[in-house]
Amino acid sequence: MAFTLMPKEMKFFDLFDQQASNAVEASVLFKELAQSGKFDDDGVRRMRELEHEGDTTTHEVIDTLNRTFVTPFDREDIHALACELDDVVDLIHSIATRMRLYRLSEPDPDLIQFAEVIEQSARAVAKAVNGLREIKRPRRILDYCIEINRLENVGDQLREAAIGKLFDGTPDPIAVIKRKEIYEVAETTLDKCEDVANIVESILVKQG
Amino acid sequence: MAFTLMPKEMKFFDLFDQQASNAVEASVLFKELAQSGKFDDDGVRRMRELEHEGDTTTHEVIDTLNRTFVTPFDREDIHALACELDDVVDLIHSIATRMRLYRLSEPDPDLIQFAEVIEQSARAVAKAVNGLREIKRPRRILDYCIEINRLENVGDQLREAAIGKLFDGTPDPIAVIKRKEIYEVAETTLDKCEDVANIVESILVKQG
Amino acid sequence: MAFTLMPKEMKFFDLFDQQASNAVEASVLFKELAQSGKFDDDGVRRMRELEHEGDTTTHEVIDTLNRTFVTPFDREDIHALACELDDVVDLIHSIATRMRLYRLSEPDPDLIQFAEVIEQSARAVAKAVNGLREIKRPRRILDYCIEINRLENVGDQLREAAIGKLFDGTPDPIAVIKRKEIYEVAETTLDKCEDVANIVESILVKQG
Repeated sequence: MAFTLMPKEMKFFDLFDQQASNAVEASVLFKELAQSGKFDDDGVRRMRELEHEGDTTTHEVIDTLNRTFVTPFDREDIHALACELDDVVDLIHSIATRMRLYRLSEPDPDLIQFAEVIEQSARAVAKAVNGLREIKRPRRILDYCIEINRLENVGDQLREAAIGKLFDGTPDPIAVIKRKEIYEVAETTLDKCEDVANIVESILVKQG
Repeated sequence: MAFTLMPKEMKFFDLFDQQASNAVEASVLFKELAQSGKFDDDGVRRMRELEHEGDTTTHEVIDTLNRTFVTPFDREDIHALACELDDVVDLIHSIATRMRLYRLSEPDPDLIQFAEVIEQSARAVAKAVNGLREIKRPRRILDYCIEINRLENVGDQLREAAIGKLFDGTPDPIAVIKRKEIYEVAETTLDKCEDVANIVESILVKQG
Repeated sequence: MAFTLMPKEMKFFDLFDQQASNAVEASVLFKELAQSGKFDDDGVRRMRELEHEGDTTTHEVIDTLNRTFVTPFDREDIHALACELDDVVDLIHSIATRMRLYRLSEPDPDLIQFAEVIEQSARAVAKAVNGLREIKRPRRILDYCIEINRLENVGDQLREAAIGKLFDGTPDPIAVIKRKEIYEVAETTLDKCEDVANIVESILVKQG
């Protein structure tokens, strides 16, 4: 790849950075809401705004793809990466809407832990995606992918511990149904970050 | 693409139309069952027949793919499109089997609303898939994809409203478990229609 | 494909065989644990070892892919096949960890049946994957894929029967929540075997 990327090709990297930084912002807001326990109308509205912004950027990627002949990597990978990044924000948003729907308004230490790990993973995703600009230095990108994989494992353990606690003693079935779902969507968010890492890795593989 | 498509290539479009119209039929039957509340042996048997017909057509796509050298678009997209269309019918079928399994035999206004949206989405899917025959007019196809995306958002709201109601007052945990699952599979059916739209879009992108 | 595969290309087949035989081992251990009902620390530890071995082999596939120029089939299919085979073991492992987490320590006839079907499917997966070495004889490979699809249908029926029983009489909501999830993950394991079969089929399709 000795040729210079054209402005239009660079645009994809700008849009991916925008999607990823939107995911970081959503994760920061989510941590804030989890810490305060205030998944109220205002908190959920701010989250929905981030989700809408994410949708707009995602559609801009697809539109740019439709109007661009030469792309920095495979068209289908650009499409997939945009969709998966969008899913990360969608999932964070859906935890927030469920918290409000289930009227869970006490700060939950397990959810706060999840929020911290999700924020770390979103930040690593942003770094991995940004790294695609310099695909000739795959080592750094792969390190972020490894970190995202590690955080996904941490999420598995968090979920197991949190759900285990739910069933302790004489559990209230309704509380179990609500909180179990929340923890599972939180864990799925980390899985989705891993899916982004897998696409990034497969882009590197194809350039390999 | 100035060349004329050969009869064998046209066959794929016929098969996709067949799969999509099978999905529409399943959605119409589902609405009928939801309105009457009669997810009895006879209703579920008719649904299973549609599901089997769908399987047969899907296998015909794969077989045709195995015996065809020139395809109207990427082999893997043909494979994926056939599988996702099949999944739509599978999911509608699985709502019906669950309704019978859980012995839910009262007409449920929330489920009826879901059934109406699923039918609309299936009809838009059929239009989008049919549009692939004239891929040089992507505008119309993209409009159907946008409509499918809109209906998926409607499904999200339906699910949120329906599940919210489930938890009102002093909920019966067993009823919550059953109905929550039903609404979630209904919403997943609309997600799957969106997956079909995404494949259609990505086929357009590659031709772009 | 008249040319002879080079040693490096053969390595992929060795690694896929290793992943698949690891899945068979996990399924055999799972059947043993299900029959005894002993999902204790020792049983889950042995399962985790298999899961870790699976991870190591999966990473070896990705690494080999990064260092190999000529591959026996599409790079992205190699990547996808490795990931899906890994998922089969992950899911079996996750049933075991949930059984311990939920302190379900009585042998459960429905789970034993699931374990038997999962073992059969894992063995068919191992045969299908091994068949990729002789891709010019697709008939045998496709037969294993058909068998894997059949077992996935058996899994659907098992799940329906097992979950139906859960709701009989006056069900205990907490028991329903636990066992329903176990049966669903068991069924998802069979779905994942089908996903492997679908990738194998799509590799055949591309060579078609």
